[in-house]
Amino acid sequence: MNNMTYGNFKHETTGTLMKKGFIALQDTYTAEKAISHLRKNVQGKTNIHYLYILNSDSQLIGVLSIRELLGASDDEWITHIMKTDIISFPTDLDQEEAAKVFRDKDLVSIPVVNRTNQLIGVIHVEEILDVIQQEADEDIRKLSASGKEIDFRTNPFVAAWRRLPWLVLLLFIGLISGGIIERFEATLEAVVALAFFMPMIAGMTGNTGTQSLAVVVRGLVSEDITFNKSMKLLFRELIVGIIIGITCAIVIAIIAFVWRGSLTLGLVVGSSLLATLIIGTLAGTVIPLLLYKFKVDPAVASGPLITTINDILSLLIYFGIATIFISKLM
Amino acid sequence: MNNMTYGNFKHETTGTLMKKGFIALQDTYTAEKAISHLRKNVQGKTNIHYLYILNSDSQLIGVLSIRELLGASDDEWITHIMKTDIISFPTDLDQEEAAKVFRDKDLVSIPVVNRTNQLIGVIHVEEILDVIQQEADEDIRKLSASGKEIDFRTNPFVAAWRRLPWLVLLLFIGLISGGIIERFEATLEAVVALAFFMPMIAGMTGNTGTQSLAVVVRGLVSEDITFNKSMKLLFRELIVGIIIGITCAIVIAIIAFVWRGSLTLGLVVGSSLLATLIIGTLAGTVIPLLLYKFKVDPAVASGPLITTINDILSLLIYFGIATIFISKLM
Repeated sequence: MNNMTYGNFKHETTGTLMKKGFIALQDTYTAEKAISHLRKNVQGKTNIHYLYILNSDSQLIGVLSIRELLGASDDEWITHIMKTDIISFPTDLDQEEAAKVFRDKDLVSIPVVNRTNQLIGVIHVEEILDVIQQEADEDIRKLSASGKEIDFRTNPFVAAWRRLPWLVLLLFIGLISGGIIERFEATLEAVVALAFFMPMIAGMTGNTGTQSLAVVVRGLVSEDITFNKSMKLLFRELIVGIIIGITCAIVIAIIAFVWRGSLTLGLVVGSSLLATLIIGTLAGTVIPLLLYKFKVDPAVASGPLITTINDILSLLIYFGIATIFISKLM
Repeated sequence: MNNMTYGNFKHETTGTLMKKGFIALQDTYTAEKAISHLRKNVQGKTNIHYLYILNSDSQLIGVLSIRELLGASDDEWITHIMKTDIISFPTDLDQEEAAKVFRDKDLVSIPVVNRTNQLIGVIHVEEILDVIQQEADEDIRKLSASGKEIDFRTNPFVAAWRRLPWLVLLLFIGLISGGIIERFEATLEAVVALAFFMPMIAGMTGNTGTQSLAVVVRGLVSEDITFNKSMKLLFRELIVGIIIGITCAIVIAIIAFVWRGSLTLGLVVGSSLLATLIIGTLAGTVIPLLLYKFKVDPAVASGPLITTINDILSLLIYFGIATIFISKLM
């Protein structure tokens, strides 16, 4: 069995993560025989925290920690002291899912079995450290659209090349906001003061969207998202958006009124911010959930993308409301 | 020794992370005696991957993996087979630093010793899984300013309450950009088309800043930052900013020229974007490095903060350049 090759297991699955150097014991052994077998076969094995008990068909029927084996008396049958409620992985489980199991169960090794329950490898927690790290890096790339694998040593040309595609895409998306403002040129020309609040409203909508995005992206690491959970989360974020929206809207309405001396301006800016914060919060929640649902590479749901979409939404709302009240604003 | 209390170790250090259930062996044992000692004392111990060899003053002088012990012949002295180049932790090491060592060295357990090198506890890799997870969550909070500990189950009022302080702060900072635009009111009134490119320029500056920030924040997880490294990174990001800036500036200058039919507008928008992208990239690098250097809580260097600061810088540059060329723009 130790001669089996890794075969063609899928990238980033339990099949490629597992190691071969485990110790298997026949189910006919006593503790004494197991220990003596162990002492003869331990050379070259890297991790022997758990011993795996196989039946005559090489199927995994029990797990025994070395601690339990050493604590047993010599003539005890290992089938009596082994654990039979085994946590094992198939060969094609995504490494992120495997990491979740390690975190939840606090185990140092988990066996990998094939479809007929034969033991073919073991995954050790040391490998999982790297998986968790990789995952976190991936999430952070999502939130910052910073391009893959840029560290302190990446040369500037490679780093720029990896970031540019995102930036150029966002440049074009950003021009949509220019198009929106152009459509409202008359409104803006009539009341130039509207421009003063434009960056703040767009920025705040982006901020609240990024906050929601972060909650979803991190949630996906440790949770399995069901439809029910998504709906509950969406409803929660709606309430959060309303609370945040009302608070910020009151603050900005007062400031706008005091600053520019126009009650209408205060109300336009305040109600715009209320609407954009609610919509921005929902966009930051719905977009990553939808991408996840449709199995689109979640790297697309990056922070800058959410921010840019929220920019566009916020300008539409802001100038839309302002245009309605244009006669009172002038 | 097993009766020692945890004492008052600092939060999130090796002292609070370590566990007591280790097995220590006297340096006078043979392999056979060690195994029999182990078999008698193994009950109630959770992790026994490594055995720790102590001298008569309880000082840690060697480490022996259970694998090596079991592979040794009965009459071997354990002092002959133990490893003496021991990796150990003091009690007051930050848990993030401890996680780095686990990642680098691929170990499952690392002993913790007091100032006189007496063994007082052991940290297991299972604990480190949680540390790495916590760290990643902290980084993501930094990048999204999403407030601490908001998950899918946090109720909406608590979630809103944790996010609001950041949003209200950013609201006020965002008003600074309003003040800047107000100062350039004459320029904006003369050429309303300048407003079209405002969100794009501000957004792009925020995006490039966030990308740089992500590289720094993630870098701090696995690197010790020296002055030299900071300078090298800063220089790298300067080059990246220049490359990104030139590329995006050329694209936008052409678009602005084609869209509005003004070569001057194209040049103003293009050169502004060049300048803001370079400055935005540097701001996203320098600000978190400075905060780290001055040991300010790095959560302050959040993505939205960088974005908001970059908004302000970009508006100053954009309107500054536009005002210089105002006569040619009209």
